[in-house]
Amino acid sequence: MLTFAQFGAGRIGAIHAANLAASANARLRYVVDVNPASAQALAGKYGARVVDTATALGDREVNAVIIASSTDTHADLVIAAARAGKAIFCEKPIDLSLKRVDACLAAVKKAGVPMLVGFNRRFDPSFAELHRRLRTGEIGAVEQVIITSRDPAPPPVSYVKISGGQFRDMTIHDFDMARWLLGEEPVEVFAAGSCLIDPDIAHAGDTDSVMVVMKTASGKLAHINNSRRAAYGYDQRVEVHGAKGRLLAGNLTPTTVELADARSVSVDKPLHFFLERYAVAYRLELSAFVEATTQRKPLPVNGEDGRQALVLAEAAAKSLRTGRAIKLPTKHFQS
Amino acid sequence: MLTFAQFGAGRIGAIHAANLAASANARLRYVVDVNPASAQALAGKYGARVVDTATALGDREVNAVIIASSTDTHADLVIAAARAGKAIFCEKPIDLSLKRVDACLAAVKKAGVPMLVGFNRRFDPSFAELHRRLRTGEIGAVEQVIITSRDPAPPPVSYVKISGGQFRDMTIHDFDMARWLLGEEPVEVFAAGSCLIDPDIAHAGDTDSVMVVMKTASGKLAHINNSRRAAYGYDQRVEVHGAKGRLLAGNLTPTTVELADARSVSVDKPLHFFLERYAVAYRLELSAFVEATTQRKPLPVNGEDGRQALVLAEAAAKSLRTGRAIKLPTKHFQS
Amino acid sequence: MLTFAQFGAGRIGAIHAANLAASANARLRYVVDVNPASAQALAGKYGARVVDTATALGDREVNAVIIASSTDTHADLVIAAARAGKAIFCEKPIDLSLKRVDACLAAVKKAGVPMLVGFNRRFDPSFAELHRRLRTGEIGAVEQVIITSRDPAPPPVSYVKISGGQFRDMTIHDFDMARWLLGEEPVEVFAAGSCLIDPDIAHAGDTDSVMVVMKTASGKLAHINNSRRAAYGYDQRVEVHGAKGRLLAGNLTPTTVELADARSVSVDKPLHFFLERYAVAYRLELSAFVEATTQRKPLPVNGEDGRQALVLAEAAAKSLRTGRAIKLPTKHFQS
Amino acid sequence: MLTFAQFGAGRIGAIHAANLAASANARLRYVVDVNPASAQALAGKYGARVVDTATALGDREVNAVIIASSTDTHADLVIAAARAGKAIFCEKPIDLSLKRVDACLAAVKKAGVPMLVGFNRRFDPSFAELHRRLRTGEIGAVEQVIITSRDPAPPPVSYVKISGGQFRDMTIHDFDMARWLLGEEPVEVFAAGSCLIDPDIAHAGDTDSVMVVMKTASGKLAHINNSRRAAYGYDQRVEVHGAKGRLLAGNLTPTTVELADARSVSVDKPLHFFLERYAVAYRLELSAFVEATTQRKPLPVNGEDGRQALVLAEAAAKSLRTGRAIKLPTKHFQS
Repeated sequence: MLTFAQFGAGRIGAIHAANLAASANARLRYVVDVNPASAQALAGKYGARVVDTATALGDREVNAVIIASSTDTHADLVIAAARAGKAIFCEKPIDLSLKRVDACLAAVKKAGVPMLVGFNRRFDPSFAELHRRLRTGEIGAVEQVIITSRDPAPPPVSYVKISGGQFRDMTIHDFDMARWLLGEEPVEVFAAGSCLIDPDIAHAGDTDSVMVVMKTASGKLAHINNSRRAAYGYDQRVEVHGAKGRLLAGNLTPTTVELADARSVSVDKPLHFFLERYAVAYRLELSAFVEATTQRKPLPVNGEDGRQALVLAEAAAKSLRTGRAIKLPTKHFQS
Repeated sequence: MLTFAQFGAGRIGAIHAANLAASANARLRYVVDVNPASAQALAGKYGARVVDTATALGDREVNAVIIASSTDTHADLVIAAARAGKAIFCEKPIDLSLKRVDACLAAVKKAGVPMLVGFNRRFDPSFAELHRRLRTGEIGAVEQVIITSRDPAPPPVSYVKISGGQFRDMTIHDFDMARWLLGEEPVEVFAAGSCLIDPDIAHAGDTDSVMVVMKTASGKLAHINNSRRAAYGYDQRVEVHGAKGRLLAGNLTPTTVELADARSVSVDKPLHFFLERYAVAYRLELSAFVEATTQRKPLPVNGEDGRQALVLAEAAAKSLRTGRAIKLPTKHFQS
Repeated sequence: MLTFAQFGAGRIGAIHAANLAASANARLRYVVDVNPASAQALAGKYGARVVDTATALGDREVNAVIIASSTDTHADLVIAAARAGKAIFCEKPIDLSLKRVDACLAAVKKAGVPMLVGFNRRFDPSFAELHRRLRTGEIGAVEQVIITSRDPAPPPVSYVKISGGQFRDMTIHDFDMARWLLGEEPVEVFAAGSCLIDPDIAHAGDTDSVMVVMKTASGKLAHINNSRRAAYGYDQRVEVHGAKGRLLAGNLTPTTVELADARSVSVDKPLHFFLERYAVAYRLELSAFVEATTQRKPLPVNGEDGRQALVLAEAAAKSLRTGRAIKLPTKHFQS
Repeated sequence: MLTFAQFGAGRIGAIHAANLAASANARLRYVVDVNPASAQALAGKYGARVVDTATALGDREVNAVIIASSTDTHADLVIAAARAGKAIFCEKPIDLSLKRVDACLAAVKKAGVPMLVGFNRRFDPSFAELHRRLRTGEIGAVEQVIITSRDPAPPPVSYVKISGGQFRDMTIHDFDMARWLLGEEPVEVFAAGSCLIDPDIAHAGDTDSVMVVMKTASGKLAHINNSRRAAYGYDQRVEVHGAKGRLLAGNLTPTTVELADARSVSVDKPLHFFLERYAVAYRLELSAFVEATTQRKPLPVNGEDGRQALVLAEAAAKSLRTGRAIKLPTKHFQS
C-alpha cells in the first residue's frame, strides 16, 4: 500500500487524485496547493487533508508523492521529496533548465528513490500495444518513425510566455515518444518552425507550427510535426516503418457512428484533447507507478527519460535559431 | 441517495456492484445469492452484508433493488420488490413466460414503483448516439433497420436447455433494439433458423443461427441476423436507412493499431464479448436508473419494453415452427 | 476471333460495344436497334454496320451475339440466335416468364451454343475476389450471407410498370449473388416489402423497399435488403459468415480523399450507380465470354443461372402475396 | 488531332503508347528506340513505324513528341524537338543537371512550343481532387504538408549509380507534389538520410531512406519521408493541414474485401507499384497534354515545374552533405 501526498490540485491533479481513489493499493493522505480552495475541494472529495509541504513530506507514513503543481515548483519538490525518501511521480517536465534537472536527478539518485516522469502517452493502450508489437519484431528493424501531434487550440499567450517554448512544452512529449519508438538515442536534431496561427505567439517569441527531423547513430530517422491548432480535435498518431512492414496507431473517437448522406460518408472527429484522449493512459500510468514502486521493479519511464527529452527540446530550439542540424553525443539508450 | 439490495452475485452481478460502488448517488447495502461464497465475496469487496431476501426487502432504508439472479427467479423477486415498494432494476428477461411477465407488470403498476429492464445496448455510447441523431431527423424517416448480433462462441448446452431458446435468450436484445430504432411496433414477424454450429444444440431443440424480418404498420422493415459463433469476436452492429441517408454504428476494438505487412493491412478484432463491449453501457445504464429514480423521471427502458421484446421472441419462435409470418396487433409505440 | 452482332444500342449496349472495341479477340460487325439513329451512332463510332435481325443472324461470319435490347425482345432473339448457331451473351433477365425462359434454354441446349446471362456483379473485382477466397476455405463452411443492394433513386413509374416488379427487375441480381455465394440452392424463400419512397410505385402495384430471407437444404441462411433509393449513392455490399470468420466486400469511391474539419471526418460517397460501380465488371464479363467461347470452356454464368434467379424472384413475389415462406424443390447447385 | 513520335519503347513508353491508342484526338506515327526489337514490338502493336530521330522530327505531320527514353537522352531530344516545333511531353526528369535543364527551357521558350513534364502524380484522381478542394478553401490557408512516398523495393544498384541519387530520382516527384500542394515555393530545404536497406546503395554513394523538411517564405512547412522499401507495397499518401482542417489522400487497393478471423480484421495491401497505382494518372496526364496542346491552353505542369523540383533536389543533396538547411531565393510560385 502506498500512501500519497499530492502537490497540485489543478486539472491534472484532479485526474491523478481520482485515479488514486480508484486504486486498491494506494491512498491519498495529503493535498498541497497554493490555492487553499482548490486544495480543500480536492482533499474533501477523497477524504484527504490539506497541509503544507513540510507536513506532507515530514509524515513517515507518506511513502510516495505526486508532483502536479506548476512547472516552476517541480524541481524543489523533487529534491525535497527525494531527501525525504519518498517515491516520486513527477509531471513533465521535471524543469525547463537542464541544470536544474541534473540537480534533481542527482538528488533522486543519492536518495535511491524511484522517480517516474509523467510521459503519459507511453501508457495509451494503442501506443503501448504498438510498442509491444514493435519489440516482438513484427515489422523487423525500425527504420523511420513519424509522429503527428497537434493540439485542438493554442493556449493563452500568458501561458506561452512561461511555457519554455513550444519544443519544451509541447514537443517534449513527442521527443519522448520518438526515443521510445526508435529504441535509440538521436544524435542529430533539425527543427523548422513558424508562427502561422496566432501572431501574439510570435510576439512572445515562440512558434505554433513546427517540424523536426532526427537521426540516430545507426541511421534511423524520425519526424515530428506539431501544431497548436487542429480544427478537428486532438490529432495524435504514430507511424513506425520497419524492414518488414509498418505499424500505425491512430486517433480515438467518441463513438463508431457513421453517416452516409447526399454529401459524404462521415464519422466522429477525434476526441477533443488530452483529458479525453489520455484518460485511460493516466490511469494506467498511475497503476504502473504504484505497482513498480510497491514491487521494487524498474519504472517504465524515469528521470533519465525526462532529461533526454529536454536535451532534444533544447537541441531543437538551437536548430531553429541556427538553421543547422544540432549534433548530440552518442549515448546508450537505457529506457 | 439510493440504497440497494442486489440479488445475484454472478458475472453480471459483479458488474452492477462495481458500478454501484463508483456511483456518487448510490450505495450497496445487501447482497443475496443462493451461493453463500459468491455472495460473501461480492459483499465483502464493497462493504455490503449478505442477507436473505426477506431481510433485504424488509429493510426500510433499502429503496432500490438490482435483480441479477438466474432468470427463473426474476418474476418472484420483481413481484416481492414491487410489493415492498422498491425501485427495480431487473436484468433481461423479466421472465420466459408472457403470463408471468404480465403478472410482474401488474404488480409493478399496482405498487407504482419504477422498473428498468436491462436492455444494456440502448446505453452503448455508439448506439445511443445513433439513436439520438436518428431522432433529430438527420436521415429523415426511418425505412429499414438491419441488426447484426453474433456471439463469439455458443454457450454450454446445459444453458441452452434452460435458456428459453435462442429468440428469447439472445435475439430478445435485438428485438428491443429493432423496436427502439424503428420507433414503431412490428406487426409482422418472420423467422428462419438452423443449427449449423453445434449438433447438441439441435438435439436440445434449439437453433444457433437465425434470421428475422419484421414489418411495422406503416411498412418500415427490420432485419436481424444472429449466430452463436463469430470467430473474430462479438459482432454488434446496427444500420438504419432513412429517406435522406444511412446511419451505422459498428464494433469497438481494444486499440487502433494497424499493421501493414507483406500479406495485408490488419487491425484489431472487435472486443471479445458483452462484458468488454458493453462495459461502458452497463455503467451508463445504472447511472440512468439511479438518476431517473432519484429525480422521479421516466425510465428510458421499462417493463413494457421487456414485455414487447418477449412478444416478438414468441412470434419468431412460432414463425420458425410454422413457416409463416406471424401477425401481431397494431399497438402504439410507447418507449 | 469472335465476330459480333449486337442487339440494342442503348445505355448498356454502348458499354458492351466499347468493351468489344477494346478487346483483342473480338470485333463488332453489326448493330441492330429499333431506333435507327441510336443504331447508327453506335455503329458509326466502332466501324460496324446497321442491319436488321435477319441479316445479322444470317451472316455466317457472325459467330456471337450480344442481346442488350429491351427485355421483351430477349427471348425471341435468344431462340433465333441459338437456331442460327451463335454464341449468346444475353443481358438479364432472359425473360420475365419462366415458361419463355424454359423455351430459350431448350433452344440453346438443342443448338449446343454457349449462353452467358449478364449477371455482371459476379465479375466485380471485389465480389469475385471474395468468392474466390470463400472457395479456398478461408472462412470455413458458409453459414450466412447478407446482401445489401440499394439503388440511388427509383426508376420512372413507366419503367416500373413493365419491369416485372422489384423482385424480377432488381432483386434478381441479388438472388443470383446469394446462390453464387451460398454455393447451394435455396429451398425456402420469404419476402416482405413496402412502398415507402414513391406512392406512384404502390399505385403501379409494386414495392420499393424489400427484405428477403432464404434457406438452403443444409440450413444455410441468406438475407437481401433492397431499396429503390439511397441518398448517398449505389450501396452494393456483401457479407459472408462462415465457421472460421467473415468476409465482406464493400462500396467503391471515386477518390480516397478524407476531410477532417470542425464537424466530422468525411470521405467520398460510394460511386453513383451501376454504370460507375460496375464499369470494370462489364469489361471483365465480356472478356470472360470471349475467352470461354473461343476456348470452348464452360461459361461462368449461364442460362440455368438466369432461370434459377427468376425462380427465386417468383417465389419472393408469391411470399409477399401470401405472407408465407415458399418452399422450392431441393436441387443440385450447378454453377 | 495530334500526331506523335515517341522516343523510348520501354516500360513507361508502353504505357504512353497504349494511352495514345485509346485517345480519340491523338495517334502514334513513329517509335524511336535504341533497341530495334523493342521499338518494333511497340510500333507493330499500334500500327506505327520504327524510324530514327531525324526522320521522326523531320516529318511535318508529326506535331507532338513523347520523350520516354533514358534520362541522359532527354535534354538533346527536348532541344531537337523544340527546334523542330513539336509540342513536347517529357518524362521526368528533364535532366539531372540544372544547367542542361536551363538550356532545354531556353530552347522551348525560343521555339514557343508547349512542354509538359511527366509529374504523373498530379493527375492521380485522389491527389487531384484533394488539390482542387484545397484550392476551394475547404481547409482554409495551408499550414503544413506531409508527404509519404515509399517504394515497394529498391532498384538494382546499377540503376542507382546512374540515377542522380535518391533526391533527383525518387524524391523529385515529392518535391513537385510539395510545391503544388503548398502553392508557394520553398525557400529553405533540410534533408537527412541513411542507407538502411541495401549496403550496396551506400557503396554507390547513395541513400535509401530520407526525410526532408522545407519552409516557404510565408512560413508554411512541408515534410517528405521516402524509403526505397515498403514490404506492403507502394505507399503514396499526402496530408495537408490548414487553418480549418485537414485533407488526406491515401493508398488504393485492388479490392474492398475485408476478412475478419480469429487473428485480426484485414484488408488488401496497397497496389504494388507505380504502374498499378498511377495507371489512371498516366492516362489522364496524356489526355491533359493532348487537350491543352490542341486547344492552346496552358499546360498543368510545365518545364518550370520540372526545373524547380530539380532545384529542391539539389538543395536537399547539399543539405545532406552539409548538415545545414539550404536557403533558396524567394520566387513567385507560377504553376
